[in-house]
Amino acid sequence: MSDRISDFHAIIPAGGIGSRLWPLSRADAPKFLHDLTGSGQSLLRDTWDRLEPLTGPDRIAVVTGRAHRAAVEAQLPGIPDRNVVLESEPRDSTAAIGLAAAILHRREPDVIVGSFAADHVIRVPHLFEWAVRQAVAVAREGYISTIGIPPTEPSVGFGYIRKSDELIIEGAPEAAKVERFIEKPDLETARMYFADRSYLWNAGMFISRADVLLDAIAATEPELHAGLLELAEAWDDRDQRGPAVDRIWPQLKKIAIDYSVAEPVAAAGRLAVIPGHFDWDDVGDFASLAKLNSSGRKNDLAILGENARILSDAASGIVVSQTSRVISLIGVKDIVVVDTPDALLVTTSENAQRVKGVVDALKLTGRGDVL
Amino acid sequence: MSDRISDFHAIIPAGGIGSRLWPLSRADAPKFLHDLTGSGQSLLRDTWDRLEPLTGPDRIAVVTGRAHRAAVEAQLPGIPDRNVVLESEPRDSTAAIGLAAAILHRREPDVIVGSFAADHVIRVPHLFEWAVRQAVAVAREGYISTIGIPPTEPSVGFGYIRKSDELIIEGAPEAAKVERFIEKPDLETARMYFADRSYLWNAGMFISRADVLLDAIAATEPELHAGLLELAEAWDDRDQRGPAVDRIWPQLKKIAIDYSVAEPVAAAGRLAVIPGHFDWDDVGDFASLAKLNSSGRKNDLAILGENARILSDAASGIVVSQTSRVISLIGVKDIVVVDTPDALLVTTSENAQRVKGVVDALKLTGRGDVL
Repeated sequence: MSDRISDFHAIIPAGGIGSRLWPLSRADAPKFLHDLTGSGQSLLRDTWDRLEPLTGPDRIAVVTGRAHRAAVEAQLPGIPDRNVVLESEPRDSTAAIGLAAAILHRREPDVIVGSFAADHVIRVPHLFEWAVRQAVAVAREGYISTIGIPPTEPSVGFGYIRKSDELIIEGAPEAAKVERFIEKPDLETARMYFADRSYLWNAGMFISRADVLLDAIAATEPELHAGLLELAEAWDDRDQRGPAVDRIWPQLKKIAIDYSVAEPVAAAGRLAVIPGHFDWDDVGDFASLAKLNSSGRKNDLAILGENARILSDAASGIVVSQTSRVISLIGVKDIVVVDTPDALLVTTSENAQRVKGVVDALKLTGRGDVL
Repeated sequence: MSDRISDFHAIIPAGGIGSRLWPLSRADAPKFLHDLTGSGQSLLRDTWDRLEPLTGPDRIAVVTGRAHRAAVEAQLPGIPDRNVVLESEPRDSTAAIGLAAAILHRREPDVIVGSFAADHVIRVPHLFEWAVRQAVAVAREGYISTIGIPPTEPSVGFGYIRKSDELIIEGAPEAAKVERFIEKPDLETARMYFADRSYLWNAGMFISRADVLLDAIAATEPELHAGLLELAEAWDDRDQRGPAVDRIWPQLKKIAIDYSVAEPVAAAGRLAVIPGHFDWDDVGDFASLAKLNSSGRKNDLAILGENARILSDAASGIVVSQTSRVISLIGVKDIVVVDTPDALLVTTSENAQRVKGVVDALKLTGRGDVL
């Protein structure tokens, strides 16, 4: 059993719906509440289970929408009430992570916080722990650290981190400075990055002293920062919290933490990266889900769904079934079939990124009931 | 309005399930009970409506399974009770058509009968009527006549009829003798037939005097013929019918009328053919159904199902929906999606013939509940 890191507190932003996984992911059943790996439990619970050995059950905060409170608490029965931070509406990642950091900083000024998405898949937990321990060691030196994934293919689905000089920090033998963050590239560029060992996938994990993170937000988004501090001050007072949220939260600027914090801090030479040698995937679409659940064989048909009754003949790809219907696939290759009680999706791995367009079309055509 | 043909009586064998159209066609909802053309009514009702102008409502008999009695009567509210011939179990087309012919012959010795499948699609009714009128004229001369369809493509899905010399018969200017019947050919042979104008598709329609048909059965299947006569004798006596059916029907030889009648009669030079210049299809599989319901454009997506809510993006083929689910198709070409409450099929036009294999597999795996 690993030792806990006493000054470390995890933050799990549990926000996005995962529109590219519609009709599996929905507004009322977002991606993080699903079992996408056949593990028998939700991605949120998997995330908790990865972090708990490092933090203990009392030091993981979840930031989620009010609508998901009951579902989140059902997934995480050990979570203390004070660690469930409820958003009245989505305000993007700087507000979500920043609010949790501000609350935790008020409770414990020297705390080191790490934010980890609720809906990523990570395998080989001890390698994840080893990366987090290094990232915490680097954070203690005043850096904001991130964990970057050495690419296993020239992916165009992820952002990249370019690392520069190594950092000499005790307890973090693999730490390096970050030169810059790069948005999802085209295939040619991705191939170049893949050939060059200095590029890592951006897995969106940030570990830093809470005060360092808040100062970074203050530097680029002073109004947002002021709002977060005001909210945090009211937070642990039951009478004040509600009115403060109603007044301040809807006014906060929506901005991803990559833009408010990661890029400017990297430019200032204060962002560090630790390579994560574990299998990682953000399960961004059904192509990724199919790969994750296949045996690795080219002609495999992956099946997700405990009641699934599948008959296939010369079919490959993935079937996700949330019904008890008999599903028969004949001669369809790299197919994606998602069978839910009120919506059915049929596409191919190659077209998986286009699913979001359907969700947009459903919004426009007044079929929000199935989103 | 056309004149009725006073000595003519139609027989509609409403038997086969249409396994290649699973999961749309089922044991309890066979192909002939479905609307496969978007006409708003079943193929059986379409068949009735095509024949009724020629026969009147009192001179169409339907031969069907006991299980389908209520459904058939609901589709054909005008059918006299005495014209519904119920099979206790399927015994193939010679027994089905032969029994109806024997019953009608007892009622009316000079009757001319014509058998027309309940589950074919025919367009342009007046051309159908014209072909039937010619076939009846030929039948009055003692021939068994059939209606053959001039091929519109080198199909490997249909049997063929090779015609020989023209027949000089009043009222039947297009009649010719049949040289022979040919089973479904391979593609090369089909191309040869298509180039040669003497080959027609076998649409399985037979028109003849009832006594001529019964004599033809007697010549090749004397035991079957004897059983049919015995059944027919008991038929119109309510007390005798049940025991006779129970005793005789299950013993009758199962043989298609093509083998018991059409081939031997053709060999004897007593089979005539009339070309049918109407659009005809036996809707044998989903590829055929897709073609039938498409606009004719290559990239069209045909939709069958009044409650269907389809969103498609770069998709072609056919969707059959019996549910009110939202169905989204993205980037799938020549796809076949059949969405029913308890079973889902996803395949392609190219693989449409393989659907029967799934039905066989479902039988073997004990999932007869969805067949």
